Amino acid sequence: MEVNFSKTNGLVPAVIQDAADSTVLMVGFMNQEALDLTRETGRVTFYSRSRDKLWTKGETSGHYLLTKEILVDCDEDTLVIKVEARGPGVCHNGFRSCFYRRWEGGEWKQVDQPAYDPASVYKS
Amino acid sequence: MEVNFSKTNGLVPAVIQDAADSTVLMVGFMNQEALDLTRETGRVTFYSRSRDKLWTKGETSGHYLLTKEILVDCDEDTLVIKVEARGPGVCHNGFRSCFYRRWEGGEWKQVDQPAYDPASVYKS
Repeated sequence: MEVNFSKTNGLVPAVIQDAADSTVLMVGFMNQEALDLTRETGRVTFYSRSRDKLWTKGETSGHYLLTKEILVDCDEDTLVIKVEARGPGVCHNGFRSCFYRRWEGGEWKQVDQPAYDPASVYKS
Repeated sequence: MEVNFSKTNGLVPAVIQDAADSTVLMVGFMNQEALDLTRETGRVTFYSRSRDKLWTKGETSGHYLLTKEILVDCDEDTLVIKVEARGPGVCHNGFRSCFYRRWEGGEWKQVDQPAYDPASVYKS
């Protein structure tokens, strides 16, 4: 079996990790088509659960994720994709990584500073 | 909202990353109870989708994952947990990380060597 898409409605989690310093930038979901497109184009493409369609990260912002390495886990139901991230950040809130808050003293505390102004990138 | 468990049947993916060198060791799923237990005990506890119950990583092998840091993403529906991993590896196939295969030339190629003998840890 190549990848097992049967466990979560045809989707597997894809952990996006910066190939240079191993920071986890974001986690998205992929179906078979998204994975095929990611391999063919070299640009990470997800399946959006909320919008119910494929989306290539960067298609709006220009901040593409260029695929360097695709790893699969022992159960063949989760991917780690090492990337070169174009642009200052992947998070639509303006941070380099979507994981910019840490659990501390009973609440989520911001532990990173914004890397860019999202209003200049995600125009309405 | 603290964590949004509504998108995947009450579960969120939890990326387990080695706190020392940032290697992604495994990805599991958590429900609210698993997250609460992880915080209270300091040992990572998942919700097993195949066995339909909570399981503390290490309860059979002794290879516990000691929680150092819990991060949440912008959508509050995915966690990154930085850990100190007890034992030589987290993968039940004997590898340090579950992500020991890379997509190369149209197939998954093993890119790491086993770290321990699973038969000595996971007795039947």
